[in-house]
Formats: sequence, structure tokens, C-alpha cells
Amino acid sequence: MRTLITGGTVVNATGRGAADVLVDGETIVALLQPGSTALGVDLRSTVDRVIDATGKYVIPGGIDAHTHMEMPFGGTFASDTFETGTTAAAWGGTTTIVDFVVQYPHENPVDQYALWHQKAAGNCAVDYAFHQILSDVQDSSLHAMDELIAEGVTSFKLFMAYKGVFLSDDGQILRAMQKASDNGAMIMMHAENGSVIDTLVQQHVARGETSPYYHGVSRPWQAEEEATHRAIMLADLTGAPLYVVHVSAKQAAEQIAQARDRGQNVFGETCPQYLYLSLEDHLGASSERWGDFEGAKYVCSTPLRSKHEGHQHQMWNSLRTNDLQLVSTDHCPFCMTDQKELGLGDFSKIPNGIGSVEHRMDLLYQGVVTGEISLERWVEICCTTPARMFGMYGQKGVLAPGADADVVVYDPNGHTSIGLGKSHHMAMDYSAWEGFEVDGHVDTVLSRGEVVVDGGLFLGRAGHGKYVKRGLSQYLI
Amino acid sequence: MRTLITGGTVVNATGRGAADVLVDGETIVALLQPGSTALGVDLRSTVDRVIDATGKYVIPGGIDAHTHMEMPFGGTFASDTFETGTTAAAWGGTTTIVDFVVQYPHENPVDQYALWHQKAAGNCAVDYAFHQILSDVQDSSLHAMDELIAEGVTSFKLFMAYKGVFLSDDGQILRAMQKASDNGAMIMMHAENGSVIDTLVQQHVARGETSPYYHGVSRPWQAEEEATHRAIMLADLTGAPLYVVHVSAKQAAEQIAQARDRGQNVFGETCPQYLYLSLEDHLGASSERWGDFEGAKYVCSTPLRSKHEGHQHQMWNSLRTNDLQLVSTDHCPFCMTDQKELGLGDFSKIPNGIGSVEHRMDLLYQGVVTGEISLERWVEICCTTPARMFGMYGQKGVLAPGADADVVVYDPNGHTSIGLGKSHHMAMDYSAWEGFEVDGHVDTVLSRGEVVVDGGLFLGRAGHGKYVKRGLSQYLI
Amino acid sequence: MRTLITGGTVVNATGRGAADVLVDGETIVALLQPGSTALGVDLRSTVDRVIDATGKYVIPGGIDAHTHMEMPFGGTFASDTFETGTTAAAWGGTTTIVDFVVQYPHENPVDQYALWHQKAAGNCAVDYAFHQILSDVQDSSLHAMDELIAEGVTSFKLFMAYKGVFLSDDGQILRAMQKASDNGAMIMMHAENGSVIDTLVQQHVARGETSPYYHGVSRPWQAEEEATHRAIMLADLTGAPLYVVHVSAKQAAEQIAQARDRGQNVFGETCPQYLYLSLEDHLGASSERWGDFEGAKYVCSTPLRSKHEGHQHQMWNSLRTNDLQLVSTDHCPFCMTDQKELGLGDFSKIPNGIGSVEHRMDLLYQGVVTGEISLERWVEICCTTPARMFGMYGQKGVLAPGADADVVVYDPNGHTSIGLGKSHHMAMDYSAWEGFEVDGHVDTVLSRGEVVVDGGLFLGRAGHGKYVKRGLSQYLI
Amino acid sequence: MRTLITGGTVVNATGRGAADVLVDGETIVALLQPGSTALGVDLRSTVDRVIDATGKYVIPGGIDAHTHMEMPFGGTFASDTFETGTTAAAWGGTTTIVDFVVQYPHENPVDQYALWHQKAAGNCAVDYAFHQILSDVQDSSLHAMDELIAEGVTSFKLFMAYKGVFLSDDGQILRAMQKASDNGAMIMMHAENGSVIDTLVQQHVARGETSPYYHGVSRPWQAEEEATHRAIMLADLTGAPLYVVHVSAKQAAEQIAQARDRGQNVFGETCPQYLYLSLEDHLGASSERWGDFEGAKYVCSTPLRSKHEGHQHQMWNSLRTNDLQLVSTDHCPFCMTDQKELGLGDFSKIPNGIGSVEHRMDLLYQGVVTGEISLERWVEICCTTPARMFGMYGQKGVLAPGADADVVVYDPNGHTSIGLGKSHHMAMDYSAWEGFEVDGHVDTVLSRGEVVVDGGLFLGRAGHGKYVKRGLSQYLI
Repeated sequence: MRTLITGGTVVNATGRGAADVLVDGETIVALLQPGSTALGVDLRSTVDRVIDATGKYVIPGGIDAHTHMEMPFGGTFASDTFETGTTAAAWGGTTTIVDFVVQYPHENPVDQYALWHQKAAGNCAVDYAFHQILSDVQDSSLHAMDELIAEGVTSFKLFMAYKGVFLSDDGQILRAMQKASDNGAMIMMHAENGSVIDTLVQQHVARGETSPYYHGVSRPWQAEEEATHRAIMLADLTGAPLYVVHVSAKQAAEQIAQARDRGQNVFGETCPQYLYLSLEDHLGASSERWGDFEGAKYVCSTPLRSKHEGHQHQMWNSLRTNDLQLVSTDHCPFCMTDQKELGLGDFSKIPNGIGSVEHRMDLLYQGVVTGEISLERWVEICCTTPARMFGMYGQKGVLAPGADADVVVYDPNGHTSIGLGKSHHMAMDYSAWEGFEVDGHVDTVLSRGEVVVDGGLFLGRAGHGKYVKRGLSQYLI
Repeated sequence: MRTLITGGTVVNATGRGAADVLVDGETIVALLQPGSTALGVDLRSTVDRVIDATGKYVIPGGIDAHTHMEMPFGGTFASDTFETGTTAAAWGGTTTIVDFVVQYPHENPVDQYALWHQKAAGNCAVDYAFHQILSDVQDSSLHAMDELIAEGVTSFKLFMAYKGVFLSDDGQILRAMQKASDNGAMIMMHAENGSVIDTLVQQHVARGETSPYYHGVSRPWQAEEEATHRAIMLADLTGAPLYVVHVSAKQAAEQIAQARDRGQNVFGETCPQYLYLSLEDHLGASSERWGDFEGAKYVCSTPLRSKHEGHQHQMWNSLRTNDLQLVSTDHCPFCMTDQKELGLGDFSKIPNGIGSVEHRMDLLYQGVVTGEISLERWVEICCTTPARMFGMYGQKGVLAPGADADVVVYDPNGHTSIGLGKSHHMAMDYSAWEGFEVDGHVDTVLSRGEVVVDGGLFLGRAGHGKYVKRGLSQYLI
Repeated sequence: MRTLITGGTVVNATGRGAADVLVDGETIVALLQPGSTALGVDLRSTVDRVIDATGKYVIPGGIDAHTHMEMPFGGTFASDTFETGTTAAAWGGTTTIVDFVVQYPHENPVDQYALWHQKAAGNCAVDYAFHQILSDVQDSSLHAMDELIAEGVTSFKLFMAYKGVFLSDDGQILRAMQKASDNGAMIMMHAENGSVIDTLVQQHVARGETSPYYHGVSRPWQAEEEATHRAIMLADLTGAPLYVVHVSAKQAAEQIAQARDRGQNVFGETCPQYLYLSLEDHLGASSERWGDFEGAKYVCSTPLRSKHEGHQHQMWNSLRTNDLQLVSTDHCPFCMTDQKELGLGDFSKIPNGIGSVEHRMDLLYQGVVTGEISLERWVEICCTTPARMFGMYGQKGVLAPGADADVVVYDPNGHTSIGLGKSHHMAMDYSAWEGFEVDGHVDTVLSRGEVVVDGGLFLGRAGHGKYVKRGLSQYLI
Repeated sequence: MRTLITGGTVVNATGRGAADVLVDGETIVALLQPGSTALGVDLRSTVDRVIDATGKYVIPGGIDAHTHMEMPFGGTFASDTFETGTTAAAWGGTTTIVDFVVQYPHENPVDQYALWHQKAAGNCAVDYAFHQILSDVQDSSLHAMDELIAEGVTSFKLFMAYKGVFLSDDGQILRAMQKASDNGAMIMMHAENGSVIDTLVQQHVARGETSPYYHGVSRPWQAEEEATHRAIMLADLTGAPLYVVHVSAKQAAEQIAQARDRGQNVFGETCPQYLYLSLEDHLGASSERWGDFEGAKYVCSTPLRSKHEGHQHQMWNSLRTNDLQLVSTDHCPFCMTDQKELGLGDFSKIPNGIGSVEHRMDLLYQGVVTGEISLERWVEICCTTPARMFGMYGQKGVLAPGADADVVVYDPNGHTSIGLGKSHHMAMDYSAWEGFEVDGHVDTVLSRGEVVVDGGLFLGRAGHGKYVKRGLSQYLI
């Protein structure tokens, strides 16, 4: 099966140009001068399928490096399965997700890794890879790291919050970082000071301040800035590379920028919610059914920040300056009914998470439209850098001979309305993005050479997606 | 004429991979999966020429964005003509130079531009483009900017030093920046405080401190840091993009880093001499013929910095962190005899400049060998970013369909010894790089599809090189 | 003549305590435990005069380190003579002024110094000292510095603005700083980039933007920040101590803070106008007579800054953190009639200056009331540090045995209304402070042992004030 | 009993001047113009005792704000009792100590406070006050804070290290800071990341790296910088004032400087050991008896830092710039025999501490001699600021009417040799300062009007010293 994508503008991280893309089976086999006669024949007549990309951008499939499908948390599970979640991803032009294997204390990391394979295998519409969460790091966790790297899991997420659930203390983090410094793994960090947050949560609840808004209030920027700085210092001490997940506070972004200026291998992602939503959205939300608990739909951690303090502005700025390198979603969807409502009367019981896996490419493209980032930077932060950061470049993240034929044809003249009853395909009974309008549209999506989305139809299938065995990060300073 | 470069590892700014490159005439027409059987036929049998790159790197031709061929300065001319200089460039894997049109006060910028075309036309072995020097900015200079942009000269160099020769005062700089903010031009800046330097020079000479070493002493890092900061503030005030040339002081690099962290379009280059040579080299140099005047061969501006202050370390660090974006040579060669010796007995009369156009790619590759930068970063700072920064990307700086077939096959197992009687082809009677050894070698060089260097032979010719009409910078934050 | 000030709270820079102050002739001869029976006798019965300070603060007389009495500028003279100006100072609790001898280019500094003595001698109500302005620094200026230091003029003000009038270029500044580094003098700097400002002024005027508001617009914070940084670097290069006058931009204050953190002897003053007034006051001002030219009454340089950018906040913060060390007035009064109105139709012709010498102590005390600074810090920035900074400590700036008996009895329960027809005694036909209310009052003022203000009466006389021969700065880091 | 100290130069924090000091009973009753006839009689003939200070400095008695007399730690007790320790203090010109009441977990803070009174009462040669250590902060600790403030204990030390012994977690620290923000107390912080240090210690010991040198190696600067930053952020979140004890790492000092620039009430002390001693001293130490365990005499926490990293230089710089405000000793003496030797074969068992209470004034005066600090700054950091910082100013820290007559006559022409058999009076069998020579000498010491040291004799007595009930800090920004 040979496919030719012709007439479009190929955009990569450093520039753009007119080029045709030739796909054979699952793989890109050539990039060619437009007209497709570079090889002496008119390729259009020799291939099985021609995709006309005239007037459109041809880009590498998106990579969402931070998802939590079916994640067990707080007595429930994230509402997207690997099937629904990867299908929604495909709709939105994301052809690879990196999901988190969860290891809780007293669980065995390697067993959990095997369990996650069972969950994903045969169910994914697009390709998937795994990071591993390590809770309460022990000697066995350190041994598991080597084993998992051999399996293609080369990044390990630690938590500075959620005591008794995920948290590792600083000595435990230090040991994991020492290990990473030896074996080349990337340390990913949930950087919030859990001890401070637990204390503030307890105080707010004790004062009867129990609405979703207080979720944000009880996780002040200082808690994020502090933990970010601490993680950076531990990384400095050990020489480990550090990747800070879901950065939302401008002060945390500044800590990362300073570390990078010194030449330290410190990286950070932000998420669409920190670019567009704010703490005040909790207050503005209300509905007949839920009253002010409607604000629960915005509960995520790190929390949304106040719009009066310049955080959103700094997130965009840091994306421009490469002090933040990529945008993931931290996709962790929970329905209002039965899930978010677990926190009625106590915000601390609300499952944390927002669902965005389907909208990331569109929401960030809107940043191109509004002039926040360039077209090339859009491709870089959504497609190329995720691949480089997490050891998939060559196979993923680039349109080049030999790469998997994960390709998105994006129409800058199209339009996408987000919300229930519109572009929404995630297994959620609400959308945090209800009403957002995007001046662009994902037209056609290929996953390893197969057209999975086209003409407003989903043409893929559960089980098409394969596991991506990752190498070490290709992005070190 | 069709050429296939096969079996090599194509390296670009974001990664590397096995791929063949197909050239038709002057242009790259396809990148193909290795083996070149993407279409079911073996391309090797259909092309005119096959270049075997097995075990080697295939990279875009180097771009040296800062050269001064035949430059009139201090009563003499830079010793490389466009012919000798571009030939030496080709030898070293550099297939495009951006040279500076010189306008002295009372000269007309547009006339000078025409004059420089006369100098270069028919004489260049590889392609060339022009920046324009504007001295003593007047209304006419501002008008000329628009005219020159239409000609493909989109970057304008101003000087904060050399009073009466090149210097524009801050109000003049402000006006040029206001213009650039309107028309999209890049302002390039020689950032040294000339008033301070002139005073110090006068004092040293008056004290009889006239040897070449005092050239460096009379241009302290404070003079560079100060002017860099000043230029950044003027750029901030006007919104113009700013590119600081030949950064050598770590404190200047830090000013640039801070501006970039804030999101300002501020850029900087450094040069090989600031990565490898130091102020103390003036003192160490001595010869029977020249005595301590031998140190004159290291006289350049900005000057070499003391090795005890960490400048070299910071230059490498800034290259890694992208606080400096590229490496040019500031190639401005003068012979010891008849030229440098003009400054015998008075260092301030020594023509300023070091010749490196031939060695940039090799000297920077040595940074890959020693672990200072990654292979991809080498390509980025030597080839891709120069093209993006100065509006040539697509045509230059990348291996992609439609691009000029400027290609270098670089052998990581080769070796290059630098010095007179070795790899030296520049029109100079000495080398500042005498004795440097590089663990790599430029094997084959194509300029617009023509093999100009191969097998230790120069196969090109004066006149092959064409003028590159540049667009606006493609690299803004 | 012996005077006992009894019952008050003596406040100095480090703390406060109940104490009596015994004055004999012009000098403080003892500080005594309250009750004044330290020797077993009641001193009250042995002195000529007892001042009851019960419930009040007893502080050193204020020192205004930056005034311009009778200053020739822009074709007119500052409207306060030494007599009217020092009388107003006395009314406001300021018992020493440091005025500026003006040397324009082609004038001889030492001659000018002699001339200023003629102006002041016999006319001052309180003590006075001199700084010297050096314009267009020449060899003769450097020689004059040594001579003037011997005369008690140990600080020299240079200008980075006002080309052709005051400006010295960077090389001239460098030479003056080299001299200061040798002889211990303090370099005072008007830190604004004059070349930038002149260009912007010309552009605004050319566009018909001629109202007083554009005075501020044409002197953007970047011009101040830049010059401040430049002066700091020149000081770093030479080792000279640097004192930046009338700091108004937060970014300039940050430059000073950074230099101080590094341990450099860099100092800064701000003025009451930068703590309370803003750029927008130009726009708000209007009158039947002057229309929007009424805004001319706020024209000073550095200019008032926009209230939306946080400058006022930073000025107070810098005063608290000692990144700014003292508050002077830059008292340079001009009447609206005949003086400010020179700039009708062209803001650049408006004589620059605001009159505040009478109100500084009160306006800053209001900062104590509102919690911006502590009571001790008030005394420090208004009285003690000016004396230390400019080599008068011991004689001035402190209540201690041997010091001149310059004493203010300040009533925290009093009240002062500022404005024409109220507390105003300056020779001005308007007040920039009209309507300001202060929750405190200068009750009694002694100058060298003589009561010059008491009970709402001026009891002093022109000619009482003597010249203070200053030593080198006693405040270096 | 009336004493006149005559002929000397009184030095305070802002300046110096010739003045006589009149003491009546325990109190200073007057400062007088030299000659002592200010009151109309020759005081010399009316007092009981005249101390001739001609040619000498007369300064407030030193205040050592950080001592641990008889401290129970690691199974032993600090070797100086309140009697020996305060006697040694007196010898060295320190007339007030602030010692730490120790509360271990499960002990009651108020009970411990009472216990410490028992230890000190009747035993001290000079005055004493108390800070309170709070370990493992609980509700009861917070209640105790209010109670203790009423008793004159207004500063509370928390620990970020020593898990299970002193450590409070971040939530506990937060709560204590919230309390301090309400009641005005000062939070003192031992800022080292204990979790990191415990892990490193375990690793070093496991590797057999057990000599004293590894004490320093296992407490890297990152552990101090990190904890300092964390404490600052917690203080920012709560609004509590923060005082960081025994700062030794330059990076920690920089964190403090940045917080202060922002206007935060963050303070820091350093100690003589961090100004003069270094990590390498562990390696250099050796003796016949102890071998390389001789290095144990330098074991303290925070540890000595490497002399190659610029920490000492930064400590002096921070003292000059007031980014560190005072110098205490952290006097915590242990003998080699029976005490330090507990750590033979395991550095982690060595009791932490160096004894310096006797030498602080001299060692810092040597910084005046070598030009590191000014004479006034010496008085400020050793005498005045400690009083202001900890709520004793007025009674202590200043020579002023009404103050306790704690006075030191210091001879700049004297000399002090430090070491066993020389000036050493501390109850230690070694001196970390053996061989240090100081170009000055404590001649005479008065404690509350009583001469306790004079003519090389100790004239004081245990029991003379009284408890000083402190108020809140008088030093807030």
C-alpha cells in the first residue's frame, strides 16, 4: 500500500517548504520536490492512494507525552479507556501518547508495567508508549529502573506531593536521580510541596471552605515554585536530567529558565489549561444542577492560577523562549457524575484532572493564529520535541525517510468548535473547553500509514496502535 | 545531471537518520529511505553520479554569516579576495558566506552595495549574500534600508565603537532600530563602548604600553557588557530585533540570556577564536622575526578574553543553551607582513582580524568530539540557524526537497591538521590556528549540485558562486 | 548660651530612646538620661533655655543633599535664592543643604566654586555645603577636583544627558572616575541617555506633541535604566564610588540593587516626587489660565513615571531595603509665570524642576505614618545617611556630643497642610504638592544651637548659615 | 558607684567620635563631649572610677546571638557550662549571649524553658537571654509560643534537618510561621535538607568513607541552598520574618540577598568559622594521637565549605552589603577526648560544633584590620544589630543614656594570640582557632556597670549575669 500526500506545505521544527510525502506501508520512504516527478516518473500514477494537501500544512503526527488513561485514582478510574482516549487523540491529530504506568507503594514496578501492557494491548487506535510512576522509591524501584529501560520505558515520574500515595521524600528522590544519572533515564517530577498543601487543605476544610475554588487556593504558587527549585537542586547534585511536568506558575517557569541558563539539563512542559484557563474560572462556573460545584470541572493539579498574576502570559513566553519545551495535556478525565461529585462538600475529594487529549493540537494552533507562537514552534512543541525528549525521534516526531508514517494534514482555513455535541469524542460528560473556537482543522490523520481520520470520519480501529519502545532522551543540553 | 549521495547518516538540527539524498541539477529533489529503492528501482543505476557516504555524516553546507573579504580597513585591505576567501570556505565545508558591504560616513549605502556586487560577481567559488554596514546613520541611510531589503539585504550592522569611522551614536542607533521595527530588518551590532576604549587606548599608548597584548587590555569586558546592555535596551524601546556580533565576554552573554528570558528578540553569535584562544596568547606569542609583536596575529575585536575568567566556558555553555544561536568567523584576515606590522610600536594601528573561514566547521566539530555540543547542535549553529536567522532557510541550511544542493559529506573518522602547509588555503602568511588538530574531516562538498571539493582536491571555480537574495529573519521569538 | 531639650524621644538611625539633649553654644555637649539629673543636680535650673519635647521626637536636623538655589538654567534662574531657599528649608526641618556649583563648558570649575560662595555667603538661614557639577570633563577639570576636595567639595556631578550643556561622554566620565578612584571623591551621576532623549524629543516636537505630558513620554524608563547600568559599569571598571541622583525608574533601582549585591560602592537617592507623583499627573492637570500646560508644574528630570508600572512601589521598597540610601529633593523651583511658560508650545523649553526643600521631612514622615518605612529609617534616609554619604557625619546627621546642635523637635500628633497659603515658604507661584496633608509637624528647629523655627514663627536670619567643609564619604561598602 | 570612661573614641553603627561615657550603677547616664566638663564641672573628680580610654575604641558590649551552653546532643553535653561559657564570653568582650532552650519531641517547650532558667540562673558571668528550639511542631508548640513571648523569648528555631531529633516537616514549619506572622515572633531556621544529608551520610558510611572530612562532603552546598530557598518561600507564603542561622554557602547567601531585594523580611547570620576555616582544614589536620581524626575538631553544621568555591569571599561580601546582618558563633563546644571521639570510625557520630564565643569580637576585628569591613560595620554586626534583631536594643547594643552599661574598651594597638595556653578560657581541650593572631585587644569589659575584665584579669563572677527579657525584633524591613 503506497500513499502520496501531495501539494501541501511540509512544516517541521526549523522551517517549512512545499514537498510531497511518499508512504510505503507503515513508513515514510521519501520526501520529494512538489510535482512528484523527482524520480523521473509521475508518482501519482504509481501509488495506491493520493491525498491532496493543497493549501494545507503537512506535519508529523502529534505526540501527547502526558496522559492517564483508565488511571486508578482516589477510588475511581480516569474515564477514558485506552480505546476511547486514543480514539479521541486520533480525532485531534495526536498519533502517539505516552501514558503513565502507575506503581503505588507496595506494588512492584515491573508487574505494574506488565499490567499496563495488558490494559493497552489490542485497545489503542494510535501508538502508545509508557512512562513509569515510581512511588515511595525503594531499592527494588532502583533495580526496576534498569529493567524497564530495557523495555523502552526510559522516564520515571516522581512526586513531591500526595503523601502516602505517590510521594517520595527528598532522600528517595536523590537516590532515584543518582540512578538516573548512571543509566541515562529522565526524571519527571510532579513539583508541588505536598506537606504545605496538605496543611493548607486541612485548614481550609476545617474553616468550611470546601468548594472547588479552594482547591486552587490551597495550592499556592509558592508550593510549586519551591518544589521546582528543590527538584532542580537535587538534579544539580546528582547530574540527572529533570523534566518538570505541568508547570503552571510563572515563578516555577523562572526557576527552570535560570537552571537552563546555567546549562543544567532541566526541562518543563505546560498544558493547554495553563495557557487558557484560570483560578477565577472556578468562581465563574455555576449550573442549576451543580451550583458552584460546577467549578469542579476545572480541578486539576498543579491548579489553575489567578489570571491577575501573569501566569498565562509567562507560560506563552516560556514556550516562545524554549524555557518550556513542550505542551502535553496531563489528560486525566473524570466525569462530573459519580466522579467529580465525590468531592461534593470537600474539594479535596474531587478527582484531579482535565481532559484535553483531543484538543491539544487545535488549542495550540490557535496560539499560532493569535501570534503567541510561530507555525514551526507549534510543530516543535507538539510533535518534534516530545519525540526527542522521550527517545522516539526518527521513528516519531519528524517527516523523514524511515520514520513512521504518522502524518496530519492540517487546514489553516478550516474551523473547529470545541464542546459536547461538537468535536468532543472523549469519554466525559462535560468539557472544560466548552465553547472554545479554533481557526484551523485537523483534516486527515495517518497513523503508521493508515488513514485513521478523514473527511470528518473516524476510519481507524482499536488495536491498530502499537507499543513504542523508547530510547534515552535525545534532547539533552 | 543527477547525483545520489547514498549510505550516509543525514544530520539536521533536530536529529539524525539514515537517508539518501537525490540531487537534480542545482537542487535537492528527494530524501529517500536508504538503499534508494523506495520506488522499486535502484536509483543508483539511474543517476549520473553516486557519492558513497557510508560511515559518514551528510549535512547541509555550512553558512558563515560574518566575513569581510577584501575589506578596506585602516589603510589596507583584508587579505582574502572574494575568490581566495570563498575557495578557502569551500575547502572547509562552508558553501555560503554572508559578507559585509561597507559604507563609511559620506558614502552612499546603495552605491556601496552596487560596488560590493562588482567585487564579488564572477569571483566567488561558493554562494554569497550581503549584510550592510551603516556608519553614522542619516536620513539617507534609513531610506536606503528599504531599498536594500528589496535587494535581499535584510540585516544592517551598526557600530558602538570606532568613532569617526563606523560609530553611530545612540540616537542614530535608535532611529535605525525604529526603522527596522517597521520594515522587519535585523539590526546587527558591534557592541563595544568606543568612547571608553578610545580613552584607554590613548592612556596605554601614552604610557608606552604599545605591544599587541595591550590591544586586549584596552578593551575590557565591561566595555562589551555595557554596550551589549545598551543595545538591548534600545532594541527594547523600539521593538527591533537585535543580533550581537562576535560576543566574547561572559558578562555580555549573560545580558543576552536575560533579554531572551524576558522574550526579547535578541540574538548573539560567537566565533571560534572566543571558544579556543585567549588574551594570554598574545603574551605567549614570540618569534625571531617579530619578537613579542608576534602576538599581533591574535589581534581582533572584540578582543580575546583572559582564560582565567571563564569566558570560553561561558561561550560553550551559551551555545549549548541557545543563548548564543550560531557561530560565525568574523573572518577578517591580514598578513603579518605589510599589514599587521602597520602596528609595530603602536597596537592601535594593527589591523583587527583573524582568518578562520576555512576552519569553522572543523573547529566546531571538535566541540562535538570533546562533548561540548551535540552533533545536531553542530549542524544547527553552523548551518541551519544561520540560514533561518538571515532569511535563507528553505534555499539554504537544510537538506530538504527544493533546497539548493549544498551538501557536505563529513567523515568522523577522518582527521584534519590545521596550519600553514597543511589545510590552510586562506591568503594569509600565518595562521592563528597553527597546530590545531581536529578529529574529523570535510571529505566532499557540493555547492548547488556541483562537487567543489572531493578527495583532497578543489574541483570548483571562481564564478560558480551566486548571490543569494535573502528574506527577513525566520528566527524571531 | 546653654539649651536643654528635655522629655523627648531621641530617634537615631538604629533605634530610639528617652533622652535629654544638652546644647552649649553651637554644639551638642551631652546626651543624658531623661530627667537630666545624671549628675545629681537638675540641669534644667542651670541652662539658659529649656525646650520641652514631651511626647515628641527629637531628631538630627534634616540634610537635603540635592538642591539648586538660584541655578542658571535654560535662560532663567531657579526661583529660590539661597536666602529664600534655606529659609524654606528651615521651616521644614532641614538644617543643611548641599547645593550644586554649576560649571558649564568653558567655565573654570574653581572660579565657579568661588562664585557660588559669593552667592551663598551671608544669605543662608541654615548651613550649606557644595557639590560641584563638572560639564564636559577636561584635564583642567581633573586638576580642579583635587583642589576642590581640599576646599571641602568632595563630590562631583556628571551628566549623561544635556548635550552641549552638561554632558560628558563616556570617555570623559571614565577619566573623572579614574581620578575619583585615586582621590576618594564621590561621582554623582545624572543617569539618562541624552542621545536617546534628544532624538525622541525632536520626534515628538516634529509630530506636534508639544504639551508637558510629552516631556515624560520622551524620557522613557529605558533611557534611565540604560544610563544607570552604564554608569555602574564605568564605576566597576575604575573602582570609583558612584551615587546616582534622582532615581525614578524601578528598573534603574534594580540595576543599583544588583551592583550593590555584588559589593560595588553604588548608591542612589530618590526624591519625594517619585514616591508620590506620576506621569499621569501631567494629564490630570488643567487650569483656566494655563489649560493643559498646567502640567508643566510637574516637569522635572528624571521625569515622573507612569503609576501603572509599579515605580512608586519600587522606590519605597528600595528605600526599605537600602538599595536606595537616601531621599533628597532635587529642589529646583521655577515659577509658572515667566519661567515654566517659556515652554508654552514646546515642552522641551520648560525649565526642569520641582520645589520641595521645605516639605521633604514631612512628606517622608508621612511614609512612616502609612507604614512604608520605620521611624528610624526616616531619620536615617533624611538625616544620618546624607551626612555619612557626603562626609559630614559627626558634625551633622547625628545627635551626639561634639555634633553641631542641629536639632528638630517633631510632633507626631501635629498636622501639616501643604500648599500655597499654608506651609509654603518657597519662592514659587505654585506648589506641586498643593493639597497634600501630613500627619506630623515640625515644631522647633535649632541650627547650630540657635532656634530658627518655633511656635509657627521663623526666628532665624539670613547669614546665620555657614559653609560646611566636607570630608570624603563615610559610607562606603 | 559612678564610672567615667574618658578619652576614647566612641564607635557606633553609623560613625565614630570622641566622647566620654558616664555610668551610674548599672546604667549609662550620659555621653559627653570629651574633657568631661560639659556639665560645668570636671566629672573626673566626681566619679568613683575613671577608665582612661585614650587611643582606644569604646564600643557597646558584644552580643553573641547564637550559643549552646551545656547543650545535650548526641549523648553528651556541650562542654561549656553557663559559667565557663559566659566567663569566656566576657574575656572576649561579649557581654550578652542568647542561648537556645532545647525542646526535643515529646518534651514541653515551656517546661524546657523553665529548666534552662535553672541551668543559667546564678551561674552566668554576663547577661543572657533565650531563644527557644521547637522540634516537631505540634499544636502545643504553637500555644507555647505566645506564652514564651510573654516571658521574653521572641524567637523560635526550627530545623529542616536531624529527622527524629529536631526536624519539623514543611507543614509544621508552615504552621509555626503562620503563628509567628500573627504574634510577631522571629522564625530562626537551621536550613539544610536533612533527608538529602541523611541519605548521603548513609552512602558514605556504607562505602567506608568514615573520616571527619566526609562530614563536610555529605552536606553539600545544594542541601543548604535548597533549604534556604524553601524556608524563604514558606516565609513568603505566611508573611513571617525569617532568620537563617549559620549561613556558610555562597549560594544560600545569594538566596537571602534576592529575597531581601524583593523586600522580604529575611535575615541571615554567618559565623567566624565560615569566614576563616574551610573544608580542606579537615584534610590538613593530623596529630600523633588522633591521626586524621584530628579533623573532627572542625566538624560543625552547616559544615565548612571548600576554599576553592568562593564561599568565604561571599560571606565577607554579604556582611559588607548587609545581605547578612550579623555574626554569631553557634558556640557549641565539644572536647576531643570523650566527646568528638564518639565519632571515631563514623563521622556521623561526631558531636557537631566549634567553640568561638571568646574570640568572635577579635576575629571580626581582624576583618577591620584586613579591610574586609569598616570599624563601624564591626560594631554593627557584633553589637548593635544583634540587639535590634532580637528585641534588646535600647537596653543593649548601643552606648546611649539609659542603656545597660555593657561597654568594651578595645585597643587597636594591642594584640591577641589565640590558642590553648594563650587567650583560651573555654572548657575545651583544643581550639579550632589555634595559632590565629589578631591585631587588637579587648582591654576592659564592663557588664552592667561592673568591670569584669581588666588588665588581663577576670574580675567578674558567676551570678552577676541576669536574664534579659526580650521584645519583638526591632529590625524588620
